[in-house]
Amino acid sequence: MKTKTHRGVVRYLPLLDDVRNLNREQLAHDLLAGTITAILLVPQALAYALLAGLPPEIGLYASILPPIVYALTGTSRTLAVGPVAVAAVMVASALTPYADGDPDKYLTGALILSALTGLILLVMGMLRLGWLTHFISHPVLSGFVTGSAIFIVGTQLGGLTGITMPRGINFFELIAVLAKDIGTLNLATASFGIVAVILLLLARRPLLHLMSLLGVKTATATVIGRTAPLLVVALSIVAATVLEAGERYGVATVGSVPRGLPGPSLDFIFAPGWLQLLPSAAMIAVIGYVESISVAKVLAFRRRQKIDADQELRALGATNIAAAFAGAMPVAGGFSRSMVNFDAGARTQCAAIVTACLVAVAALFLTGLLAPLPKSVLSAIIVVAVWQLIDFQALRHTWRYDRADGLAQAATLFGVLLFSIEHALVLGVGLALFLFLYRTSRPHIAVVGRVDDSEHYRNIHRHKVRTWPHLLLVRVDENIYFANIPQVETELHHLLLERERISDVVLIFSGVAYVDTSGLEMLENMEEELSASDVTLHLAEVKGPVMDRLYDTELYRRLGPDRVHLSTDIAVRKLAPRQVSGKPGAT
Amino acid sequence: MKTKTHRGVVRYLPLLDDVRNLNREQLAHDLLAGTITAILLVPQALAYALLAGLPPEIGLYASILPPIVYALTGTSRTLAVGPVAVAAVMVASALTPYADGDPDKYLTGALILSALTGLILLVMGMLRLGWLTHFISHPVLSGFVTGSAIFIVGTQLGGLTGITMPRGINFFELIAVLAKDIGTLNLATASFGIVAVILLLLARRPLLHLMSLLGVKTATATVIGRTAPLLVVALSIVAATVLEAGERYGVATVGSVPRGLPGPSLDFIFAPGWLQLLPSAAMIAVIGYVESISVAKVLAFRRRQKIDADQELRALGATNIAAAFAGAMPVAGGFSRSMVNFDAGARTQCAAIVTACLVAVAALFLTGLLAPLPKSVLSAIIVVAVWQLIDFQALRHTWRYDRADGLAQAATLFGVLLFSIEHALVLGVGLALFLFLYRTSRPHIAVVGRVDDSEHYRNIHRHKVRTWPHLLLVRVDENIYFANIPQVETELHHLLLERERISDVVLIFSGVAYVDTSGLEMLENMEEELSASDVTLHLAEVKGPVMDRLYDTELYRRLGPDRVHLSTDIAVRKLAPRQVSGKPGAT
Repeated sequence: MKTKTHRGVVRYLPLLDDVRNLNREQLAHDLLAGTITAILLVPQALAYALLAGLPPEIGLYASILPPIVYALTGTSRTLAVGPVAVAAVMVASALTPYADGDPDKYLTGALILSALTGLILLVMGMLRLGWLTHFISHPVLSGFVTGSAIFIVGTQLGGLTGITMPRGINFFELIAVLAKDIGTLNLATASFGIVAVILLLLARRPLLHLMSLLGVKTATATVIGRTAPLLVVALSIVAATVLEAGERYGVATVGSVPRGLPGPSLDFIFAPGWLQLLPSAAMIAVIGYVESISVAKVLAFRRRQKIDADQELRALGATNIAAAFAGAMPVAGGFSRSMVNFDAGARTQCAAIVTACLVAVAALFLTGLLAPLPKSVLSAIIVVAVWQLIDFQALRHTWRYDRADGLAQAATLFGVLLFSIEHALVLGVGLALFLFLYRTSRPHIAVVGRVDDSEHYRNIHRHKVRTWPHLLLVRVDENIYFANIPQVETELHHLLLERERISDVVLIFSGVAYVDTSGLEMLENMEEELSASDVTLHLAEVKGPVMDRLYDTELYRRLGPDRVHLSTDIAVRKLAPRQVSGKPGAT
Repeated sequence: MKTKTHRGVVRYLPLLDDVRNLNREQLAHDLLAGTITAILLVPQALAYALLAGLPPEIGLYASILPPIVYALTGTSRTLAVGPVAVAAVMVASALTPYADGDPDKYLTGALILSALTGLILLVMGMLRLGWLTHFISHPVLSGFVTGSAIFIVGTQLGGLTGITMPRGINFFELIAVLAKDIGTLNLATASFGIVAVILLLLARRPLLHLMSLLGVKTATATVIGRTAPLLVVALSIVAATVLEAGERYGVATVGSVPRGLPGPSLDFIFAPGWLQLLPSAAMIAVIGYVESISVAKVLAFRRRQKIDADQELRALGATNIAAAFAGAMPVAGGFSRSMVNFDAGARTQCAAIVTACLVAVAALFLTGLLAPLPKSVLSAIIVVAVWQLIDFQALRHTWRYDRADGLAQAATLFGVLLFSIEHALVLGVGLALFLFLYRTSRPHIAVVGRVDDSEHYRNIHRHKVRTWPHLLLVRVDENIYFANIPQVETELHHLLLERERISDVVLIFSGVAYVDTSGLEMLENMEEELSASDVTLHLAEVKGPVMDRLYDTELYRRLGPDRVHLSTDIAVRKLAPRQVSGKPGAT
């Protein structure tokens, strides 16, 4: 039997359990998967640092200590944590106004962002506030990701072609600058960028197709395909060195990258700007968490494993705090990288530790080789990586099923392109919530009648049902709360005015899970008003939780148990006894 | 038969219809009611102008042209439009930072506020956006009114006692200043103020009680009671003149008030600050409209008349634009004044026109008499008028029935006292909506079974019901949408894990009026997942509007008509045929 302390430790350090149960075969899987992921990660880490406007080594630092901390604390066995594209572009968007052109301040700001992101996630985890992220709907997230991917492609078009583009402008402004300054394009830079894009694209489907024709196994072909970014980087370094691209053609290159790992830097703790960066950090935290937990859940589901949402918050919090102390940018669980890790056979987070060690080796010994690498090649890696996130199909699909969701998705997508990435998220979430509230403010209200000989009652306009002239059976298909009370009241008035000879009104509450104070007031007024006109108000199918609150109200004191019926059919049997007990007569 | 043009004219000028049908008896009622309302209105108009920080005559101007415009356009027969306390204090709150101590700019700002308020209401009326105001719940409004009334009392304590108090500070700061500067109290000013408060209070219940003891009819006694504010003003003028209160004791007096009516002033149109005042104007518009329409509805209901919410928006819009051109502050339908008008027997808006004419007479001929009136007497009128709006009972009542509503009400009330009046409203509305969303994000989910021999299915934990071991019947009591999907998914997983031997799961959608895109995705994933474990998913009692959208989805293609059942009972009959057709066996 496990002791309580042991369970407590495992709860906060889930890796311990995995390590105890690790066998040689699993370890072999993790070693291979970790290596493949590292090969993909090194060029991506350099590229995403560039995307965030940071020196390339910051991407490497983000890929060493943080994934190790996540490996120890996270509940996902296969999530690959590190720099991700969307968080990187959010970092750039937050730091451009903050640093105002000062690269030292820019770097310090990135560390503050990492620390804040970590603290926010940690606090959310402690307070079990993960549910707050549920208010980001799938369509809004999908619109956000597609919009961000398009925006990221826009920001990289400058780097890809050697055209200087200002930071902090929106997608359409980026395109306008590009069109205006197309003449300043550096042909050599653009050649490197475009060749890299073509090679990376060829390394996908076409390469797989070719290799399958050559009889290479799909699994092997996939692994070879994944080395493409690293190969493209290596080839570019060789080509740029041979051609002296930097000196002779003015191609922007990565330049000298410091070797080794930085000691823990604590200066950022005392730097100003924590409050100013807080809103951006909150956005990065939420988006990073949502991206991570979505991937983690998908992968866990495939192997019937469980993800603890609150522990994920704490783990990603600790991971980002570690990033700050490691001198790195904010990190999250990346979608494509985690998929690669999973597909390559990773069983536990030991794979992530293997990846981190290999990246550390690269940071210690290989950074000296990076100097001649054209930056446009890194831009190419970014463009090809985020291109797959662009999904307009999803927008069409959403729009067809639900206009409100489609609207929220489109608003978020175009919001990213028109405004800033943070404003678009707030706009999308706000719009989705507003549209939901708007819908609940105009509830569906159906007059119902009995289906055949059954005890089931349905809408008179949709089903062939039996009705009784003195009896009005109304089903309210929404919680009765302040936003829809005028609407419910008006519709009930209309229904009553349309009909004469009504002696009893039964409100069927099968669709009502909540009646708020304003709703109770409305029902009390309605009861009084109906009584004055000699009409009796009844309730039927009131759910337990609603009934619990009604007992102690003026409404229930007036209705009494006789006018609150368990089911609609019981109400009808009491109120139209002759017709119900015998054979069904004329409708 | 009425022509189409006639109906169009009547729609926008409802008074015409009333005037055509007016008879001598009705006119007599309106004359009396209009006179009584005017007697109440004159001192209130002076006082509310003071509350708004404006010269007293502005209150009179607000009580002449605007009510006439409302009389022509409004759909309420008895609403008394003019300056109101809450709008007045909102004007002061908006103009204090705007004018920065410049009285001319302050006055111009008031006219801009009137014009903006009118334009906002007019545009809302044209676009039929009245439903936006439904998002202000009764508890929030109640908290707002009580909070505002307490705050207004606080602002008037300085005027009542002659202690100089700064503007633009919150209630607690007001009390702190008062406590600190209590030594600077002007005894003469305070005597006028406190005696006025006592007289006004005595003129309520005690006077009615006394007169009923003396055999005076209740109706007559009520009318006499209503003249109290005017009598107190007249007595104060006489007393202040005799005692030379202003000169000898330094009592702050109203001072010279310009006689007559101002020509239309159009300078405000070109003054700066329209954009700056827009948010405040929007708040004044919304609160003014909500107050007006609430009173109008209550009064209309008593005489079985109808209020057209959109025409009310347009009418109050036109009324406030008229206020701007008449050199007046924003106006609305006042609660207590409309009650007085109604109780005094007003039948049509002719009463309002009578009131307006009498106020005009006062403005033309009586303003010269106002100079010696101590301002503390006007403060006394304000304090006594708003004191009745303070209602802590309502808060207790709300809290008992619904914690969420109680929280929103308390937050709004204390928000007014702690922050500004506008921020409190935004806070209250935001909190009420958030708490509603929070509730819908944690839906009630019940496992149900059959009640006795009926076709009715209820919660297994609340009712004695029959269940079947291989059949899981689950009722989801909320719309399935993005905010509650993780919760619904987790609970369904738990229910499935708790039970073995389940072969069929029936989701009962009697409480589901809407399934959004994320919800559809979740159901599709769940169907796939259950299929993989050899469990069949069914739906029952899917409402028409939900079914309409489901037809064209992957989910329905997989379920087919066989697994979507009209009623729960039909589903159970199919899935547990032997037990259902015979006598009920063991549960």
